[in-house]
Amino acid sequence: MPTSFASAQLALDLVGVFVFALSGGLVAVKKRFDLFGVLVLACAAALGGGIVRDLLIGAVPPVGISDWRLLTAAALGGLVTFVYHPGVERITRFVRVLDAAGLGAFAVAGSLKAVTTLGVSPVAAVLVGIITAVGGGVVRDLLAGQVPEVLRRELYAVPAMLGAVLVVVAAQLGSLQDWVLWTAAGLVFALRMLAVRLDLNAPTPLRSNVT
Amino acid sequence: MPTSFASAQLALDLVGVFVFALSGGLVAVKKRFDLFGVLVLACAAALGGGIVRDLLIGAVPPVGISDWRLLTAAALGGLVTFVYHPGVERITRFVRVLDAAGLGAFAVAGSLKAVTTLGVSPVAAVLVGIITAVGGGVVRDLLAGQVPEVLRRELYAVPAMLGAVLVVVAAQLGSLQDWVLWTAAGLVFALRMLAVRLDLNAPTPLRSNVT
Amino acid sequence: MPTSFASAQLALDLVGVFVFALSGGLVAVKKRFDLFGVLVLACAAALGGGIVRDLLIGAVPPVGISDWRLLTAAALGGLVTFVYHPGVERITRFVRVLDAAGLGAFAVAGSLKAVTTLGVSPVAAVLVGIITAVGGGVVRDLLAGQVPEVLRRELYAVPAMLGAVLVVVAAQLGSLQDWVLWTAAGLVFALRMLAVRLDLNAPTPLRSNVT
Repeated sequence: MPTSFASAQLALDLVGVFVFALSGGLVAVKKRFDLFGVLVLACAAALGGGIVRDLLIGAVPPVGISDWRLLTAAALGGLVTFVYHPGVERITRFVRVLDAAGLGAFAVAGSLKAVTTLGVSPVAAVLVGIITAVGGGVVRDLLAGQVPEVLRRELYAVPAMLGAVLVVVAAQLGSLQDWVLWTAAGLVFALRMLAVRLDLNAPTPLRSNVT
Repeated sequence: MPTSFASAQLALDLVGVFVFALSGGLVAVKKRFDLFGVLVLACAAALGGGIVRDLLIGAVPPVGISDWRLLTAAALGGLVTFVYHPGVERITRFVRVLDAAGLGAFAVAGSLKAVTTLGVSPVAAVLVGIITAVGGGVVRDLLAGQVPEVLRRELYAVPAMLGAVLVVVAAQLGSLQDWVLWTAAGLVFALRMLAVRLDLNAPTPLRSNVT
Repeated sequence: MPTSFASAQLALDLVGVFVFALSGGLVAVKKRFDLFGVLVLACAAALGGGIVRDLLIGAVPPVGISDWRLLTAAALGGLVTFVYHPGVERITRFVRVLDAAGLGAFAVAGSLKAVTTLGVSPVAAVLVGIITAVGGGVVRDLLAGQVPEVLRRELYAVPAMLGAVLVVVAAQLGSLQDWVLWTAAGLVFALRMLAVRLDLNAPTPLRSNVT
């Protein structure tokens, strides 16, 4: 991987890890876990998506357990949440915003690492991007005993997919640039927040059919 | 892997992916997830078992994220379920039948791929077959917030084990043929359906002991 | 890996697998699963941690599915639990003790295998040790539909971390000896039991802050 990608990769990973650590920590605070429960859930939410990504593309040991900077960012996120956290009613809203930011950072970080790994097809790179992006939140919600965000009402996986497609197409065109990556991450964040704000929902199965 | 195995492998994978996508989609419909929730749960149920299998035998990136045919089958299964699905009371029964079909296809597809991979012992191949077969259903049930089918009352893992043993023994005897594979898959399906129909249950722990 | 480590590795793996199989089986008995449900949960709890460890360090296929001794120990643990299990009120206490023993065995077995694998950094080895130790319990609790022990109140991951750090430091100093390994495992067990007995809890988020 060229140096410029490597630094963008690390920056995106760091952003994603930190915000997902905050989101995991907040869910843990809401569930009244103790200090170590908060730290564990923060780390699981923060590092889960990247670890799954690295397992899928054969990059072992995953950076999520070998890079001290990512580990530090995850632990720091958990600690910050534990010490200073907003009231319970505001927690859900905060989790949503952080989750959207993590979704953007990880959709791009995941597809970027996959598309620059030998032997990973463009289609697989898009899927790795999506899985990286939704993975942390799924791990967080499963451990906390709630149905994962990605399955609940509201557009969630689609913005991640768009971001991943953008990265993979840019890679195919040979025009992977730092600004493309950050734009893609920002776009995912914006689309996800738009869906939350406007309460945009995808269609649900016909009720009449389900009686 | 000889070509004939490769085509049987793909066919079994496709069957397993499609029926598990239907089963995942139906569970999502029952839980009233939206269109994308249905698609995500369908894909997770359909591709989960095969992805775990490929991680276990070191075949990365897993075909579940790199082969567009499997991805298309999974998405198609989710879409079909969303558009046309039976009433709620009938969903549980449908999920059971599809689940049994997926169990058969994946027990054989999993053990076949493992047994034809260098460095995987016969015992490991049987276990990979079982894990491939039950994996999709476990992912589906965990994400949907219900106790996995494999742990509830009724014979479930045993038919999968028998199918996987059959494949591995045939491989040891050098008589892996297409008809052996399909017979094994059919046998798993038949045994599982028999257990469902006759409400065959394995013994449970003595009640008197648990008071 | 030198022979003496290999035999300590196997012994620690066997101990961890057996006691986690008992703990998984007991949880299954408490949930009134049938014989095969008990066996499946016992195997998942027993082998889950080690399988995740081997995936993280790239040792595929994992010993948890390829070594018949570990498989036998897991199945035996499940069977023993099914046939002879204590009353329900005592099950929770038993699970705690077995869980602490498994935590010790796997924290050491996990970090030992990681630290003796080429290309795994000391930091990563500590994390692999923690993940191996808590992994089986997390799998057990997720499958059984309860919030994982590691997130509930009481010191849990910390003893595992101390044990893993001890092993990695000993490896760095070139003084990995059998007695060091067993002492580390015993220490983790003792610390965890102390936390259970004294009901030692880590601090929880300030209540006033969460209204």
